[in-house]
Amino acid sequence: MQEQKNIAVVGSGLVGSLLALYLKKAGHQVTVFDRRPDVRKVEFSGRSINLAMSDRGWKALRTVGIEEEIRNLALPLDKRAMHVNDKPLYFQKYGKEGEAIFSISRGVLNRKMIDLAEDAGVKFRFEEKVWDIDMPEAKLYTGETEKSEWKEYDFELIFGADGAFSRIRHKMQRQSRFNYSQHFIDVGYKELTIPANEDGSHKLDNASFHIWPRGEFMLIAMPNLNGSFTCTLFMPFEGEYSFDTITTEEKADDFFEKFFPDIKAEISNLKRDFFKNPTSAMVTIKCFPWAFNDKIALVGDSAHAIVPFYGQGMNAGFEDISVLFDKMKKHENDWENIFKAYQKERKPNADAIAELSYQNFIEMSRKTADPEFLLRKKIEKRFGEKHPENWIPLYSRVTFSDRPYAEALAIGERQRRIMDEVMKTENIKEKWDQQEIEEKILKLLAAR
Amino acid sequence: MQEQKNIAVVGSGLVGSLLALYLKKAGHQVTVFDRRPDVRKVEFSGRSINLAMSDRGWKALRTVGIEEEIRNLALPLDKRAMHVNDKPLYFQKYGKEGEAIFSISRGVLNRKMIDLAEDAGVKFRFEEKVWDIDMPEAKLYTGETEKSEWKEYDFELIFGADGAFSRIRHKMQRQSRFNYSQHFIDVGYKELTIPANEDGSHKLDNASFHIWPRGEFMLIAMPNLNGSFTCTLFMPFEGEYSFDTITTEEKADDFFEKFFPDIKAEISNLKRDFFKNPTSAMVTIKCFPWAFNDKIALVGDSAHAIVPFYGQGMNAGFEDISVLFDKMKKHENDWENIFKAYQKERKPNADAIAELSYQNFIEMSRKTADPEFLLRKKIEKRFGEKHPENWIPLYSRVTFSDRPYAEALAIGERQRRIMDEVMKTENIKEKWDQQEIEEKILKLLAAR
Repeated sequence: MQEQKNIAVVGSGLVGSLLALYLKKAGHQVTVFDRRPDVRKVEFSGRSINLAMSDRGWKALRTVGIEEEIRNLALPLDKRAMHVNDKPLYFQKYGKEGEAIFSISRGVLNRKMIDLAEDAGVKFRFEEKVWDIDMPEAKLYTGETEKSEWKEYDFELIFGADGAFSRIRHKMQRQSRFNYSQHFIDVGYKELTIPANEDGSHKLDNASFHIWPRGEFMLIAMPNLNGSFTCTLFMPFEGEYSFDTITTEEKADDFFEKFFPDIKAEISNLKRDFFKNPTSAMVTIKCFPWAFNDKIALVGDSAHAIVPFYGQGMNAGFEDISVLFDKMKKHENDWENIFKAYQKERKPNADAIAELSYQNFIEMSRKTADPEFLLRKKIEKRFGEKHPENWIPLYSRVTFSDRPYAEALAIGERQRRIMDEVMKTENIKEKWDQQEIEEKILKLLAAR
Repeated sequence: MQEQKNIAVVGSGLVGSLLALYLKKAGHQVTVFDRRPDVRKVEFSGRSINLAMSDRGWKALRTVGIEEEIRNLALPLDKRAMHVNDKPLYFQKYGKEGEAIFSISRGVLNRKMIDLAEDAGVKFRFEEKVWDIDMPEAKLYTGETEKSEWKEYDFELIFGADGAFSRIRHKMQRQSRFNYSQHFIDVGYKELTIPANEDGSHKLDNASFHIWPRGEFMLIAMPNLNGSFTCTLFMPFEGEYSFDTITTEEKADDFFEKFFPDIKAEISNLKRDFFKNPTSAMVTIKCFPWAFNDKIALVGDSAHAIVPFYGQGMNAGFEDISVLFDKMKKHENDWENIFKAYQKERKPNADAIAELSYQNFIEMSRKTADPEFLLRKKIEKRFGEKHPENWIPLYSRVTFSDRPYAEALAIGERQRRIMDEVMKTENIKEKWDQQEIEEKILKLLAAR
């Protein structure tokens, strides 16, 4: 058992509230600060993509004993439902029988997590903005505005779980030799909604992740418990079809009529929501170090924000907590080494999932219509089904496993190189499903 | 002639004072703010690497009519003087006959530039720290501290020339979709001094850039007009021989005795200065965009800080001003398009010189002792001398030219690929100076 510490967690989002629960259950005094009002008392903002909880997320919840409670709020999705123009709807299974990702609304989950943390004895201070910290002394300053009088708090440890635009990281960033990058992609997103049927049932299959791929842009929909779907439109900020050009209700109407005729009627208040809901940007953030002495550490998006195209943002943040907790068990009261071991293990994996998420963005936006890419996927799928022990697909390594992301990335790159060779085979289009190809892959796999 | 504008330049360093002079001569009202005291009235800090002015820098000075005045403060260096262990001193010419870089002390140059700008009518406000700006309104706020009462100034345009840790960029960085990265290298530097002889002459050849390469670390020395040399020790922060391990005067003494015995006695106050002078970090900073509407723009290090291993930091900053001035002539009073054209032209070139400078760091620290690398350089040199029109060395393209950095980088990469092929030749060590090799390079150059 660790010596009790007086700990501040900045940020009451998913990662902040889960971390607070872990720390409280480990015997610490925990106060969570958030500049926003209590999410349980306000309408949740219309700028969230539904979450896809997968193995890494569940593992972190299980360890702290709340897996079942959260599972009741989630819907399992075992397949993609592809809504491709001029083709009947078709499905792609995510993994093996029984493997699924779980759709859950960010607002619903966040409220529940705060309830659970509060019940365990975590103290929450909402609408209290942290403006600055004293890193060597673990002091924290809050106030109305940057220039108003500030209140000072003394802690022994401070965690920054305050998201991609973290104030805690912002302070760490002023140190010399602090590496940092923020890279925005040129695509934004907007939340829209498909409401439930009158009897409360879902308008589309509720065990599928629905995708309308359209090349430069894409619509997705994930089911909620209440029968509705949260939809997300991903589209470039600038260009022919873009958030820049769809400037009137008429243009929004025409755009959906042209590209999403099958679903347009189902999206409620399309024209209103398109302009009421904000257009959000997506960023990859990397930094290092994640910790300062035995005082300050970053977790979740504040350390490694990623683009959402692998559905791993929350899962990666929750896995940070699993790793941090392992290090707490190992190094007991030596917080400096807890933080060192934590950042050493997590940094390469955070970089790997950032890379994988970005690759998926490129893949989804540029390659879904490329026949060579589709053939490649078909060959991989066939081989993987015949030799499941030799070819675990990258998606499964990321989603249905808790092996390190960096390992998934490395094996995925090896698989890509093997497939590059396979695709050079003469007449590959004709003989993709023949014995010869299977043997070629086996041979390439055997060669180290 | 442009309409007169009331313009603020933040930062009175080399780029800030040159930009102020340009703007004043173009007919604008110009106020320069600097949080530091007037550099003409204080001792210059012991943390600077001497500057190497080359063609791009001179061109920017020439256009505004101050080339001659600055040339009087500089010493031409037409070669490297290599102080390699267990070898006699040898020299490497930088370029063709008459080509040289010019050593100039940062303090001396900065004082002169401020004098020239002040004489032209630029107003300087020293010891006045800019804390914030209002970007759409081009307002600027200064004050004692971040939390003290601030003074508000109204301008029409604001330039951020406030260096790698720019406050102006810091404000721009809070915009969504602003890309930014800062990457520190694991090597630091420290300034040391070789004083003049008693008669005022130089202790080493004063037409050379002196280098003591030692693998993981390196000492350089550049002459000053007053007979002294400014030396810079580049060394890792951590590791066997590092700023971390040299912690006592005795250890500093032993280190210089072991690795720099030929020069140790000449460095004045070695043991004192080693601990008195700060150890400085080196960073590459990239960002985009560099401008906001027709109101705010970044120049020099605030937009693109680079590591110093190509000697191009100041030259690149001065070239920003040349390009900005070209755009001012072209777009007249349309400042939004001036800024757009400026950043569009400069960004790829700033990225290219950042990459080249980083490559030179890797090259200097890892490859100077590699026999294959040295053979490669020998072959290139031989070929370049026989076919000067076909093989302008990368160093010359960067240093003795005002062609875009991005072009130098691209051609340099092509040359590297050609040399990769050449180095695959069997028995290259024996036949490196034979006709066969020359013909192979010509053939590779001819193949597009």
